[in-house]
Amino acid sequence: MAKEIPYKIYLEENEMPDSWYNVRADMKNKPAPLINPGTHQPMTAAELGGVFCDDLVAQELDDTTAYIPIPDEIRSFYRMYRPSPLVRAYCLEEKLQTPAKIYYKFEGNNTSGSHKLNSAIAQAYYAKKQGLKGVTTETGAGQWGTALSMACAYLGLDCKVFMVKVSYEQKPFRREVMRTYGASVTPSPSSDTAIGRRILAEHPGTTGSLGCAISEAVEVATTNEGYRYVLGSVLNQVLLHQSVIGLETKAALDKYGIKPDIIIGCAGGGSNLGGLISPFMGEKLRGEADYQIIAIEPASCPSFTRGRFAYDFADTGMICPLAKMYTLGSNFIPSPNHAGGLRYHGMSPILSQLYHDGLMEARSVEQTSVFEAAEQFARVEGILPAPESAHAIRAAIDEAIKCKETGEEKTIVFGLTGTGYFDMVAYEKFHNGEMSDYIPTDEELEASFAKLPKVD
Amino acid sequence: MAKEIPYKIYLEENEMPDSWYNVRADMKNKPAPLINPGTHQPMTAAELGGVFCDDLVAQELDDTTAYIPIPDEIRSFYRMYRPSPLVRAYCLEEKLQTPAKIYYKFEGNNTSGSHKLNSAIAQAYYAKKQGLKGVTTETGAGQWGTALSMACAYLGLDCKVFMVKVSYEQKPFRREVMRTYGASVTPSPSSDTAIGRRILAEHPGTTGSLGCAISEAVEVATTNEGYRYVLGSVLNQVLLHQSVIGLETKAALDKYGIKPDIIIGCAGGGSNLGGLISPFMGEKLRGEADYQIIAIEPASCPSFTRGRFAYDFADTGMICPLAKMYTLGSNFIPSPNHAGGLRYHGMSPILSQLYHDGLMEARSVEQTSVFEAAEQFARVEGILPAPESAHAIRAAIDEAIKCKETGEEKTIVFGLTGTGYFDMVAYEKFHNGEMSDYIPTDEELEASFAKLPKVD
Repeated sequence: MAKEIPYKIYLEENEMPDSWYNVRADMKNKPAPLINPGTHQPMTAAELGGVFCDDLVAQELDDTTAYIPIPDEIRSFYRMYRPSPLVRAYCLEEKLQTPAKIYYKFEGNNTSGSHKLNSAIAQAYYAKKQGLKGVTTETGAGQWGTALSMACAYLGLDCKVFMVKVSYEQKPFRREVMRTYGASVTPSPSSDTAIGRRILAEHPGTTGSLGCAISEAVEVATTNEGYRYVLGSVLNQVLLHQSVIGLETKAALDKYGIKPDIIIGCAGGGSNLGGLISPFMGEKLRGEADYQIIAIEPASCPSFTRGRFAYDFADTGMICPLAKMYTLGSNFIPSPNHAGGLRYHGMSPILSQLYHDGLMEARSVEQTSVFEAAEQFARVEGILPAPESAHAIRAAIDEAIKCKETGEEKTIVFGLTGTGYFDMVAYEKFHNGEMSDYIPTDEELEASFAKLPKVD
Repeated sequence: MAKEIPYKIYLEENEMPDSWYNVRADMKNKPAPLINPGTHQPMTAAELGGVFCDDLVAQELDDTTAYIPIPDEIRSFYRMYRPSPLVRAYCLEEKLQTPAKIYYKFEGNNTSGSHKLNSAIAQAYYAKKQGLKGVTTETGAGQWGTALSMACAYLGLDCKVFMVKVSYEQKPFRREVMRTYGASVTPSPSSDTAIGRRILAEHPGTTGSLGCAISEAVEVATTNEGYRYVLGSVLNQVLLHQSVIGLETKAALDKYGIKPDIIIGCAGGGSNLGGLISPFMGEKLRGEADYQIIAIEPASCPSFTRGRFAYDFADTGMICPLAKMYTLGSNFIPSPNHAGGLRYHGMSPILSQLYHDGLMEARSVEQTSVFEAAEQFARVEGILPAPESAHAIRAAIDEAIKCKETGEEKTIVFGLTGTGYFDMVAYEKFHNGEMSDYIPTDEELEASFAKLPKVD
């Protein structure tokens, strides 16, 4: 086995990108704007400024500037845990006996345990710059909440986190990490907000969803002086910050003259996938190169593969602007899949537009097969993956097995977004054969689609 | 702040050491040999071969060969997670406003969460090479057990782990990680072994200790065909394998022309500290350089600072050979400190001899102040440390504060052995002010010393 390529490709710190890449600048069909749920007119900067920091509003609305400089303070913070390694999965390749070459960009080597820190520090930085007291947010698996807590602790900002109830209960230690970083953590839906109380009344016993938690966090941000809301996925600004993943991946591949054939990422709200693929998608949009790009989502929450491309609320409480995206309906509450970070009814408007335009594909996978892949990967590559990340592993293994059958030597790159150290309850269920593979019925989805807001 | 030195110094994979360094070769006063508890004669290779693999026995007894080649298979495995970064703690320095320069060698970026994997893969490799079915061991915090499980899964060996009961209960998720890697995990003391039953009868309600767990693991290894016992610390062979930490640290420092003044490591059985300091101690022994070397231990289990330098059993059950070391007595059961990996009554014979000869110093620190340091470190450096590692952080911060007072620009290097993701119960107790700082009384220690075996 030729080993000219090391197990782990690390860029030098001075090779880290100094700008984020805004893929919207190269999109012919831009993602549809956020619209006001009352007027159905595009949200203005002033309207968005009530919810988000000013600089982030500007980033949210800018669909023409290709490169946006990363402030020095954020680059300093990035140096604490970046550049992240691009790993050649030699051991997995050998185990699978595949001619495919498999690489993964590993974003889990930081205490938040995932890529979420890339956007958390950016959003906290702009909040601090604006002189705010603090920020509010939601978290699913707890990775985003942990990341935001770390960023806020570093900058001295207050941090209020609404955590999806099922994760709050399944991941008490993740909650404790957030508290170590000084954040307050509330299980959602809660009785602390008007929307939380309404959801609890309508769905007693609900295990919550990202959609509910977003509503509560937005309510608190917009009713408390000196606070703004920040979001770990879906938004254009988040994909912008996460482009650092793709830029580093591309730089590392270019350094060794490697051209990927297939790029795979898990997709919940789309932050990791959008960040990972952005520079590759840019080349594709500009006609400079072609790649097979695959989004992987849980079969229990299949927004790309079974959702509608329509305007919908980003949150269950229906207080956020409407976004045009692939959605299962903001009323859809997915079954309690252990990949909490993928339990979201919608999808990034950028990725939704790219998918709608045929520039990428999507697949859904079932939970048990995802954990089979996770365990197989852990045993040969050493890293215990987060359930979210394991969706991408499942697809990468499937593609590598296809290569074995056809003899093709494809180069596969996937995003290993994080580690599963706080997901041991899920692994335990898997070992005990107690894992659900529930998939929503067509009737359930139709019932949810029927409640989509009517927009021309 | 000059930043010519990057935040993280990574060696290239081809700069990884190709041999381990055996510090005994440079010691004028060699560590005393293990002796047979019945005859008080040095243990022969044949006697040790009943407990340990043959190649490891040879390494255990070899005190003259300075460099022992690392087999290719082990180097391949090392490449999955090594070289580990040497990090410049710029953010901590700034927070402390110290003129000191602080570096830490971070061994936590692998799923075992610590440096333990360095020796686990070596010991599993030699067991496999000898054609054994499996290995048995003990684990305290669970880091060693996890590491061994990973190594055994990789090589296809059976792995039986006895886990100190207090950790088994405090760290259910660590246990589940071991199960993910296919290991069987038993809380110790257990009723599965004769020794476990005896200890349970004598100390009902005991939360266990590394000493008990060792006895049980040795019993199982020596009464089952095709099994040998492996140990994560204390032994000469383990310090040999862990020298990879120090060799990489030295190579990284040399690359940037940095000469440390102070080298700090936490010490339970001594594996991390022994590995980290070995090449520096080698220079000191050969008269080529001088360094201040400091071992940090918990005040609740102070083998260096309050123990006796005497022959003692390595295990509570008194079935192991006798080792000459600093010890609190094999009957000593420390209070349930959260740094499970440091709850051991003895200390590596190599380090004990070096300490006895005045070549290094030792300090003990109290638990609450350790967690204060841990939280302070986490908030500025991002990494949430293991309680064990936080002992070294405490001392590094103390030294950096001294430099602030004196104006000295000392260069401090410490070992950050692992992450605390499975220690959130301890952090929770710290946050709730429920942490014990119990220190054994002189009377308790004297009572334990009175039971030391009589050896001329």
